[in-house]
Amino acid sequence: MNMELSLYNTLSRKKELFVPLNPPFAGMYVCGPTVYGDPHLGHARPAITFDLVFRYLKHLGYKVRYVRNITDVGHLENDADEGEDKIGKKARLEQLEPMEIVQYYTDRYHRFMDQLNVLRPSIEPRASGHIIEQIEMIKKILEEGYAYISNGSVYFDVTKYNEKYAYGKLSGRILDDMISSNRELDGQEEKHNSFDFALWKKAQPEHIMRWPSPWSEGFPGWHLECSAMSTKYLGEQFDIHGGGMDLMFPHHECEIAQSTASTGKESVKYWLHNNMITINGQKMGKSLGNFITLEEFFTGSNALLDKAYAPMTIRFFILQAHYRGTLDFSNEALLAAEKGLKRLSQAYETLQKIQPTENANSSLVEIKDNCYKALNDDLNSPMVMAQLFECARIINSANDGKESINESDKLILNEIFQVFCFDILGLSFEADNNQSEIIDNIMQLVISLRKDARTNKDFVTSDKIRNELDKIKIQLKDTRDGTEWSVVE
Amino acid sequence: MNMELSLYNTLSRKKELFVPLNPPFAGMYVCGPTVYGDPHLGHARPAITFDLVFRYLKHLGYKVRYVRNITDVGHLENDADEGEDKIGKKARLEQLEPMEIVQYYTDRYHRFMDQLNVLRPSIEPRASGHIIEQIEMIKKILEEGYAYISNGSVYFDVTKYNEKYAYGKLSGRILDDMISSNRELDGQEEKHNSFDFALWKKAQPEHIMRWPSPWSEGFPGWHLECSAMSTKYLGEQFDIHGGGMDLMFPHHECEIAQSTASTGKESVKYWLHNNMITINGQKMGKSLGNFITLEEFFTGSNALLDKAYAPMTIRFFILQAHYRGTLDFSNEALLAAEKGLKRLSQAYETLQKIQPTENANSSLVEIKDNCYKALNDDLNSPMVMAQLFECARIINSANDGKESINESDKLILNEIFQVFCFDILGLSFEADNNQSEIIDNIMQLVISLRKDARTNKDFVTSDKIRNELDKIKIQLKDTRDGTEWSVVE
Repeated sequence: MNMELSLYNTLSRKKELFVPLNPPFAGMYVCGPTVYGDPHLGHARPAITFDLVFRYLKHLGYKVRYVRNITDVGHLENDADEGEDKIGKKARLEQLEPMEIVQYYTDRYHRFMDQLNVLRPSIEPRASGHIIEQIEMIKKILEEGYAYISNGSVYFDVTKYNEKYAYGKLSGRILDDMISSNRELDGQEEKHNSFDFALWKKAQPEHIMRWPSPWSEGFPGWHLECSAMSTKYLGEQFDIHGGGMDLMFPHHECEIAQSTASTGKESVKYWLHNNMITINGQKMGKSLGNFITLEEFFTGSNALLDKAYAPMTIRFFILQAHYRGTLDFSNEALLAAEKGLKRLSQAYETLQKIQPTENANSSLVEIKDNCYKALNDDLNSPMVMAQLFECARIINSANDGKESINESDKLILNEIFQVFCFDILGLSFEADNNQSEIIDNIMQLVISLRKDARTNKDFVTSDKIRNELDKIKIQLKDTRDGTEWSVVE
Repeated sequence: MNMELSLYNTLSRKKELFVPLNPPFAGMYVCGPTVYGDPHLGHARPAITFDLVFRYLKHLGYKVRYVRNITDVGHLENDADEGEDKIGKKARLEQLEPMEIVQYYTDRYHRFMDQLNVLRPSIEPRASGHIIEQIEMIKKILEEGYAYISNGSVYFDVTKYNEKYAYGKLSGRILDDMISSNRELDGQEEKHNSFDFALWKKAQPEHIMRWPSPWSEGFPGWHLECSAMSTKYLGEQFDIHGGGMDLMFPHHECEIAQSTASTGKESVKYWLHNNMITINGQKMGKSLGNFITLEEFFTGSNALLDKAYAPMTIRFFILQAHYRGTLDFSNEALLAAEKGLKRLSQAYETLQKIQPTENANSSLVEIKDNCYKALNDDLNSPMVMAQLFECARIINSANDGKESINESDKLILNEIFQVFCFDILGLSFEADNNQSEIIDNIMQLVISLRKDARTNKDFVTSDKIRNELDKIKIQLKDTRDGTEWSVVE
């Protein structure tokens, strides 16, 4: 079968065959979090999306270097060129050193990404750790004439750049349109045009995070770190750059401008963008009050949540949509994801104990092919899931004696789960649930024995059951729908 | 009681009252790992030692800023001033970018430290992320006249420094002795004296990790990062500097010289050093073939190990010795630690279900006092453990009806466990065992119900129990000593 991977390139607005610059190596840079707050659903989607890319490229045999940065300096409020540093502000409010904020939220980001089974990238560089590299890049851009110094700060000259290159080509914006809506500068302004952007900012006296530079004591502009760090670790030209669609403009557009201005080359071959997550149809945002952190998902402690959802449910939910489609969160959707995951995990369990038949099942080779076809078609994870559900249907049906699965089919089915469900989609059927399930199974037996005893008016036994459970801190509660049990603390 | 903490200060060679420079703040810097290999027992001891300091200072109410670095550049083979960078070499051998090596081993270090229940430090700066800070410090040292430039590299002038300050005061070395054993320099050598040390090294052409500087494209000397980063995050003067005893000379001695030379001040108030770990009486080392990684401990996959040891067993084992004493690893010692931990955990469990007596136990207040006394006496963790074992003895004895524990004693005992065992020593009685225990408890009830049914010749019930257990893959086996159960796979 055809094993060629196509990826939708935002730059060309079409699916393109993936041909890396230096096979068997593949380089990928993805914009990571600005670590000034707790990770939420909006962090989970790009992390899981590019984890899928990372896993699949590795599966295809590429030696992948995956770089995902940590933004710990230079990202100002409202993604603007003026205002307070997001981390600096949090540090001020909490009376901590900015790097304490960075450490705390980086650690939490890692913890929650681990729970979502997101693999660690090959390199995770920090913006504050690459000030020299950023200063060197600014020097080059200045030398090439695409930036100007203004009052100790350095700005990228978009107009000048656009004379030779196309500013706006990634996001489809036209500079002329921007010029016509160019807001009036008040004369005090350091920038020549409102759409110019900062490469280096002179630090105000109260600004804590600052470094010496040829222009002033200051800090780098937000867009610069990604250009400097991707160049350092992946070279002037590399294969894939990923990130959320919200970063396309201005962030990625500015990255292209910076890299092109300093090297004269097109730095990125394939630009990949995941779409956004909405909550009950609305954009998610702190100001909208519909902001749910991952910890809240995992514990259920948010008024918008009917219950807690396991990390694997969140991962399943995200992969159930194609990465370029929007994804709407709702309790219904997450419950459906939970059910879907359970269905797969039960089918996988059934598969392990099923008695093989004589006759073979004819559809499995096609299922495996379909999985590859789906992945090769711009990483169509929902299509892969549909194939896994078809496997589940076959397994259940065979378990009911209505379909055949012979010994070699069992091997193929196990392989499909191993390769597509576990290795590539990165789902797992947790071991912990297993123990909980055992407990629940035994408790169902105990509850049934108690019911028998009561029916038979054998109160010695029914009392014994209640008393013994009491001792081991398990409580029974009789409801209209039957008896429930719970552990009391 | 007296709540004053005394710490043994290597600098004064005596125990001193801990009086922080800016209460309620306390600043602590500890030398972290050079991330070019898998974490081993030699990493666990300082991490756990200073985790204890961190936890206890927080318990005492200090606002602690704990900085522990990651060395990812500049640490050359044999801790020397010439030779290959440890990380660069590993990267060359594995055909990876040095930062991929750094990322991989940093992630593994974190994972294993998490398993050992070592809290993350407040800030975990990387040497490569603080090149500018290091360059600025070199400039100051040059300005003060305590360094010289030689062929693009910069060296610290120990002789010059020693004219004004005492080089060697931490380790007790005398410069005159070093001078007399000063090895002949061959004239080609860049250094004036063999005991001078590098602040900046000009990079050889093949050297990958390099940055521009006023002197050459190169990299910082190994000792410099700790001076630069501790100053940046804790100020020119701070409270505690910790690390393994093997770092005392030359590393910490050079740190003192660098900081003093650049600021004229004594930077560290209390120098704390943990002692070394030996294996069956021998120094641990890769070349000695007795090198055991933490992963090998946790999995048992090393010929020197009789079995796998849980992370908590390792933590218990390390805390069972005072941090300034040597600690010899052996299977016997680890088995004893495992047993000790089990004894504490069982006593804690017993405590939860014990029936309170009328009479009070008179010794508990003293036990609590003793725990504080032990900790305040230079963090005597083995003494705290002895107190916890005394608690275990009382609990077991009370459980046998031989001693009294009333309701308020139960509270005190629970508090002692919570504060000293869990919060300060950082031990935990694992949660996973909990679920296994619940299962076992319920199964004991089911087995007892089956026995009753058989005794009453109620074969309907006893058959039902066996059949239902069969369905959920639990097997019963009747033995002479009773009925055992197991999960069949």
